[in-house]
Amino acid sequence: MSEILSLWNETPSKKAIIDYVNTIINPESADFVPETERIAILDNDGTMWVEKPMYVQLFFVMDRLKQMAEADPALLDQPHFKAAIKGDLIYFFGLDPHAGGDFKELMKTVFDSHAGMSQDDFMLMAKEFLETAKHPRFGMLYKDLTYKPMVELAHYLDDNGFKVFLASGGGMSFLRTVSEEIYNIPKERVIGSNISFETRMTDEGPVIFRKKGLVDPLDDGPGKPVNIELHIGRKPILAAGNSDGDLHMLWLARKSGQRSLSLLLRHDDAKHEYAYDEGSEKTLQMAKERGWIVISMKDDWKKVF
Amino acid sequence: MSEILSLWNETPSKKAIIDYVNTIINPESADFVPETERIAILDNDGTMWVEKPMYVQLFFVMDRLKQMAEADPALLDQPHFKAAIKGDLIYFFGLDPHAGGDFKELMKTVFDSHAGMSQDDFMLMAKEFLETAKHPRFGMLYKDLTYKPMVELAHYLDDNGFKVFLASGGGMSFLRTVSEEIYNIPKERVIGSNISFETRMTDEGPVIFRKKGLVDPLDDGPGKPVNIELHIGRKPILAAGNSDGDLHMLWLARKSGQRSLSLLLRHDDAKHEYAYDEGSEKTLQMAKERGWIVISMKDDWKKVF
Repeated sequence: MSEILSLWNETPSKKAIIDYVNTIINPESADFVPETERIAILDNDGTMWVEKPMYVQLFFVMDRLKQMAEADPALLDQPHFKAAIKGDLIYFFGLDPHAGGDFKELMKTVFDSHAGMSQDDFMLMAKEFLETAKHPRFGMLYKDLTYKPMVELAHYLDDNGFKVFLASGGGMSFLRTVSEEIYNIPKERVIGSNISFETRMTDEGPVIFRKKGLVDPLDDGPGKPVNIELHIGRKPILAAGNSDGDLHMLWLARKSGQRSLSLLLRHDDAKHEYAYDEGSEKTLQMAKERGWIVISMKDDWKKVF
Repeated sequence: MSEILSLWNETPSKKAIIDYVNTIINPESADFVPETERIAILDNDGTMWVEKPMYVQLFFVMDRLKQMAEADPALLDQPHFKAAIKGDLIYFFGLDPHAGGDFKELMKTVFDSHAGMSQDDFMLMAKEFLETAKHPRFGMLYKDLTYKPMVELAHYLDDNGFKVFLASGGGMSFLRTVSEEIYNIPKERVIGSNISFETRMTDEGPVIFRKKGLVDPLDDGPGKPVNIELHIGRKPILAAGNSDGDLHMLWLARKSGQRSLSLLLRHDDAKHEYAYDEGSEKTLQMAKERGWIVISMKDDWKKVF
């Protein structure tokens, strides 16, 4: 048997996770949790893979906006298209909520860029992007820039009878194109933000199209418990996140009626990844007050990628 | 080993189902389907349990409207409340789409009756209803009026590596209160129509409330493929339904890119259940044209309940 959580240093965080799992899977324990109730929910951007210099999906959107503007120069009147064709990263960084941008505005830009396509075509396009696109600093494929200790944690939970879900603020479909390959998490366990879909009946049967308009609520902040209820119908007993967008979800786990674990990942390793607390201040404060576990990427992990 | 589909007669329908499953699970077959892709989706009302004299959930709503009108007689100005307090079943039958009612209007009535409650309170109330409420003709608990051959089919699919989902036109939460007990289908595999939820932050953390307003689309007709995409992100390879509200879903299975099976249940056993084709005419015609399997409750099953 391989060592449990082998990519984690021997710190109190690792011990707390293993002690927790050992307790809730032990039928002799007063805190035993049956498998049906072992729901774990992990945020994705910044919790499972890198979210700097900006959300991976925004690079995908820049690509798409550029293609659209090349096909129809009239679009260049609009700032998003102009920035995309110039490759103006700074403009897109500014949309990021960590930099003061509005998350809803951001996701509208993201989703509108692929409105009107069939869902099958979108999935192919997203998959192709993630097969080839590389991170500007690390020179690796985005899909390889997952945090390996967190992937190991997901597998460890799965091995112990947990149903492991992702709850991403980003687009659900985008993430589903790679969730099985990179995390071994099946598509139906990926929750996220969504554009509206519609079924159009054709001679060859029903086809699903993406239409303009966000599905309310976006999967961020108070939207996460709502989408967890819609997709799962149970509260998680374990939740992991890295920002204020995860605060509601981390707290939700404490209300499952079972012994629970809330994990807050802190980006404090500028050498191997990035160091930033912007956008996580409230949740870091809450973690301190309530004794949630704060995972230090620098101290708790042997490696990041 | 117990006999496969022991509650089914030795008819072409039973043979077609077993042949299909044996083929797609056989790694030597050209039509082999890996487990990840083995998605089966079953409609609920009229496919898994009785939907006559009217949807089970409507009896629950009548109860609730009656309680509300007793607490606030001013509500009696409104026809739904008046009918509920008089126990006017005929009025509620008329809301049923099988009787020409509008499905969206119906579901609005259903959902509005529990708007403003916390989701936890709603789930308790629904569970309590289903623990005690009995069918007017059969005198049995509604939750015991599942079609046993279909429950057996769900278990048979599960045993063969399928992920079995329910896609109900009715309320998702209502059905989730019993899906594990009566079908052994976990809550997260129940898809259905929904009222909107919102998270309210309290001193004790986030609480999910039901608010007025349907989640678009309802899980009926063209809404079923949309909700399947949102919940699963894969097309089913096997689908079973009983009405025109299932037509899009039954056709969707034919577009999975895998060998597929579409099953249409026909209510033709007035003695043991009911006999009606109203509301299923289009799909019966489509099944004939396209060679989908029509299951006769009278001929294909040894027993119904």
